[in-house]
This record gives sequence, C-alpha cells and structure tokens, in this order.
Amino acid sequence: MEELTIRPVGVVHRDDEEFPEGECVLEVRPELKPALLGLEPGMRVLVMWWMHRLEEEKRHILQGHPFGDESRPIRGAFALRSPKRPNPIGSSVVEIVDVRDNELVVRDLDAFDGSPVVDIKIAIAQDE
Amino acid sequence: MEELTIRPVGVVHRDDEEFPEGECVLEVRPELKPALLGLEPGMRVLVMWWMHRLEEEKRHILQGHPFGDESRPIRGAFALRSPKRPNPIGSSVVEIVDVRDNELVVRDLDAFDGSPVVDIKIAIAQDE
Repeated sequence: MEELTIRPVGVVHRDDEEFPEGECVLEVRPELKPALLGLEPGMRVLVMWWMHRLEEEKRHILQGHPFGDESRPIRGAFALRSPKRPNPIGSSVVEIVDVRDNELVVRDLDAFDGSPVVDIKIAIAQDE
Repeated sequence: MEELTIRPVGVVHRDDEEFPEGECVLEVRPELKPALLGLEPGMRVLVMWWMHRLEEEKRHILQGHPFGDESRPIRGAFALRSPKRPNPIGSSVVEIVDVRDNELVVRDLDAFDGSPVVDIKIAIAQDE
C-alpha cells in the first residue's frame, strides 16, 4: 500500500507560563495564512496533529486496556483513542480563543509543544 | 517543517451494486486485524481517509465558498470541510454495520472506492 507524504500545515506552541489556562497556539505556515479566513473566536475547529513524542516502536502496539486501566478488557488500537496506534494522528474538536496573524489560540488541545499540525477543519454542526 | 510519512492502515471498497444502501467496506491490512478487537456493529468510529481523487494542484487552493455556493462569503480552507486543502484527509464519524475478519462495514462514509484509510478511532462525540 503506497505511502502518503504529509507536510505539516503548522506547529503547536504550548507554554504553560504564557498560557496557564491550558491554551496553546497553532502557528500555521505563513503562506497558509489565507486558509484561516473566516475563523473567529468562539468557533469550534477539528484539529488533527501528529503525536510526535510517541516512540516509533509503539506504533506496532495493536492492543491495550482503555486508559491503561487493567480492570477493563483489552481492545484493539482502532477501538481506543490511545496514541499507541499505527498512524499516531490526534484529533480533537476545540474552541478558538483568538486569531492573530497566522496563529490560532485554542483551548483544551491535548497536544504537546512542538507537535506538527496536520489539518484544521471547521467543526460540523456549527454552520453547515 | 519536516514531512511525515503515513502508511495507510487499509483501503475503502465501495461497490454500489453490492451495497446499494450507501455502505462501504474498510479493509485493514491483515497484520492489523488485532487492532479491530472490541469493535462491534452499532458502535460509531471516527474514520480518517486520504481523499485520493483530489488533483495535487488543488492542495494549493486556500480559499473557497462553502459548498461552492457563491452567495456565501469566501472562507479559508481551514474554515471549510472542502477536499481542497493542503492535506486532504477526510474525517467522518460513521456507524459500524458489520465486522468480519479484517473488514469493517460502515454506513454513510463520504469516501471513494480505493481511498486509503489513515486511521480508525472509537468515536467520543458526534461532532468530530
């Protein structure tokens, strides 16, 4: 099966001193700034990001307990949200707090500082 | 920004004669079958797939009208769900109809026959 090449559209910046409330910044590549047109504070977007801290070998772990809770039955990676999966792409719907130049400030994104951003889409059930 | 390499976890099969009700099959690579453990009919999963029919040059279209409706204001690709976006990864929450061997039959997935599947995750909410 042919490999796909993804060039990240941006990167996550997370600085707990600058944003003690759990916010973080999605900085998109400057040439992609036009793709942010129409996004405003209060809107919700689906963010996909690469869980870059996952060690390569953990992509081969195909089963685990939900949330690591051994009292719960083992499930497959596709029946979990765990980062341990063949293609570690995180996906969350988050609220936009601010839009400034080529940056979105969002709340409650479960990504790390330095995580590559794969895509941003307006969340459905909002305006469609 | 470093490129990411994704090996698809499977492929979409869609045959409107076999599935006149709009169902399709997600065939995962045989060695990934253990990752399906715990998925059952009636559950909802978030499916990410590569919109492989999009011509490469359309990845550079950064703005457009919602649903191509010119009466609506132009927006950026990140404020749309259009396939015309830098990384054309589709994302939908769909219902599992059947699980058989290394295949999931799902309903209402907006993918084409032959689309590479990037990831499958148990759904947490309906608005992903």
